[in-house]
Amino acid sequence: MNPELIDTLVVENTTTIVFVILDGIGGLPHPDTGRTELETAVTPNLDSLARQSICGILDPIGYGITPGSGPAHFALFGYDPVIHNVGRGLLTAAGIEFAMKEGDLYARVNFATADEKGMITDRRAGRIDTETCARLCRRLNEHLTGTAGADVLFVPEKEHRALLVLRGDNLREEITDTDPELTGKPPRVPRATVPEAETTRRLIEEVTARARRVLAAELRANTILLRGFARFREYRTFEGRFGLKALAIANYPMYRGIARLLGMTVHPVTASVRDQFGSLRENFRRYHFFFLHVKATDARGEDGNFDGKVKAIEEIDSLIPEVVALKPDVLVITGDHSTPAVMASHSWHPVPVLLSSALCRPDAVMHFGERDCITGGLGRLPMVYLMGLALAHARRLSKFGA
Amino acid sequence: MNPELIDTLVVENTTTIVFVILDGIGGLPHPDTGRTELETAVTPNLDSLARQSICGILDPIGYGITPGSGPAHFALFGYDPVIHNVGRGLLTAAGIEFAMKEGDLYARVNFATADEKGMITDRRAGRIDTETCARLCRRLNEHLTGTAGADVLFVPEKEHRALLVLRGDNLREEITDTDPELTGKPPRVPRATVPEAETTRRLIEEVTARARRVLAAELRANTILLRGFARFREYRTFEGRFGLKALAIANYPMYRGIARLLGMTVHPVTASVRDQFGSLRENFRRYHFFFLHVKATDARGEDGNFDGKVKAIEEIDSLIPEVVALKPDVLVITGDHSTPAVMASHSWHPVPVLLSSALCRPDAVMHFGERDCITGGLGRLPMVYLMGLALAHARRLSKFGA
Repeated sequence: MNPELIDTLVVENTTTIVFVILDGIGGLPHPDTGRTELETAVTPNLDSLARQSICGILDPIGYGITPGSGPAHFALFGYDPVIHNVGRGLLTAAGIEFAMKEGDLYARVNFATADEKGMITDRRAGRIDTETCARLCRRLNEHLTGTAGADVLFVPEKEHRALLVLRGDNLREEITDTDPELTGKPPRVPRATVPEAETTRRLIEEVTARARRVLAAELRANTILLRGFARFREYRTFEGRFGLKALAIANYPMYRGIARLLGMTVHPVTASVRDQFGSLRENFRRYHFFFLHVKATDARGEDGNFDGKVKAIEEIDSLIPEVVALKPDVLVITGDHSTPAVMASHSWHPVPVLLSSALCRPDAVMHFGERDCITGGLGRLPMVYLMGLALAHARRLSKFGA
Repeated sequence: MNPELIDTLVVENTTTIVFVILDGIGGLPHPDTGRTELETAVTPNLDSLARQSICGILDPIGYGITPGSGPAHFALFGYDPVIHNVGRGLLTAAGIEFAMKEGDLYARVNFATADEKGMITDRRAGRIDTETCARLCRRLNEHLTGTAGADVLFVPEKEHRALLVLRGDNLREEITDTDPELTGKPPRVPRATVPEAETTRRLIEEVTARARRVLAAELRANTILLRGFARFREYRTFEGRFGLKALAIANYPMYRGIARLLGMTVHPVTASVRDQFGSLRENFRRYHFFFLHVKATDARGEDGNFDGKVKAIEEIDSLIPEVVALKPDVLVITGDHSTPAVMASHSWHPVPVLLSSALCRPDAVMHFGERDCITGGLGRLPMVYLMGLALAHARRLSKFGA
């Protein structure tokens, strides 16, 4: 089924849908206990919800595919994650609220450290502070004014991260990353993957070379690495597709960026997960859809911190009654992908999901965990179909055919 | 997998397949008991069959999509329900055995009541009797003779329902319904959804206006509402695709219409469900495929009559031994979609299915019910693939590839 079939069936309603996205929630068993992070955590509230819900497991992209957070979130929001896949550059631009323009080309910049032979010794330049990042961007912008072929702009993001904007005519995005992704190697030479991108490729090589000369005297941030070249593109908005006025309560730039790309209202950054749930409560009557994004589960998973991830899950569990008390018509709890602590990285394993609604047909699942959700009534399904299920349970889809 | 892949594998055999379709069989839990209609019904025969069968749950169209009966039946018969979706007009024409012709445009007509301001007060004109319907069609046909652009024909169906046939050149079906679907509103003005349909749209507006003048003096049926515009089209026949001589034992026009569109033989209307099973027995040696359609389950569901639906299920259960005694090579029991009594409407929830055959690999399912079928060996699958499974278990498909 084409995921966009649901767009043709959307009807107006006043019902409310809440997506609580526990980033990287899916896990793998701890070697000592045989239980995953979610199975280890004490989660009375999630379990109680699971008993009244329909559960299942979601494949963000496809069998065996480990997703980046970008495509996984597109899938969560009902956008085909392969068709809508987009370079990190565009997500970075959206995340920092850069005023994007048709024709722009973006790339994500890492300030990095290279030794005298040009080998990368630190891909994050010792995590320079954000002020240093801003100062370096200013210097680069001064020195790169008047580059032939495009306006060049470096915009600071956070710590060692920045955005490169090339604004010109006929710029192409079919350029490979210069980030070697490993230390001990030199930056990669960018390649054009289609002949039409050759002019842009030369421009990027020139910008990179000039940037290195400008940064040469820096102790740590003496080079730049580029990845995720992406031209500006416009997305059909979430509200346009589904008729849902949406609020994103997410604290990290990338997720804020995706929400913004899809036209969601983005809530100001909050101080804690507890505050995120508070913001949900305060705004509950003002929107029809809430995307509440919790980063801690993924962060602990990426750190390989099994116990930390368990704790993060237990903290969320303690906040679940606050959402339930708001009585959303549909409450979905899931993740964008798995980040098993034992792998300390994103993985391809499917993600447990729970959908609670007065109209859900319950199944036999008693606990919210990977093994239990396998036996759930939703079965195993591509993540992109979750949005249609949420809309259906919120009575926001009309009948298909006579 | 393309559902038409199976067509290339079909081989001859003499085996028999029976589909018992319990319309709207899928349900939702009763708030007092937590059990669905199927889980509430006492069904020793279906349960006994389930123990020797392979079970699962079927999505008629896709996750979250509530199907009309038309596309759901296309899916049951192995026809992609989105590609083959067709306006109600064509199903009505086929259902009343109208002699269809290439180029015809059909619409389903409701005679309706409008007040002096033109607002619809009854979408079914007080369910006028079939004789009145026939009389009104005759009058309309007399008065609308000589309409420029097409021959106009109203054909009575049943009670307030009729068929509108426009026979002419270059008629288009891309016209929106005039039925407002609610009372207290005027009929909708038809819209052409592609520019090429504008001539047809004007013709339909004229036919509607003239029909209203003809009907103006009627007390109840003083206007018409049109929906489901559809041009004639030919389908690849069921027998042509699968090599199965098929008999449809269905009493409602819509299902008889679909069967006829697909080239099945349609059994005369019978007086009761018991007679339908009797007709199956009588014809058992004369066909290879039987489509036995039971309407009561859906009708009680649509009425919101939980207990009535339970009773209808129990009546079917009592008839199941008659089918089993015939020893079909494959016996499938399922529905076309869910019609939970608590919703009193079609819904998107998947449909339990049971496939019984000497070659099925049984699973652990002990009862024929929604929650049990979730754990069945067929898993959760798109309904369109059911036909291939039936053919395989009937040894009617050859090997794919070397």
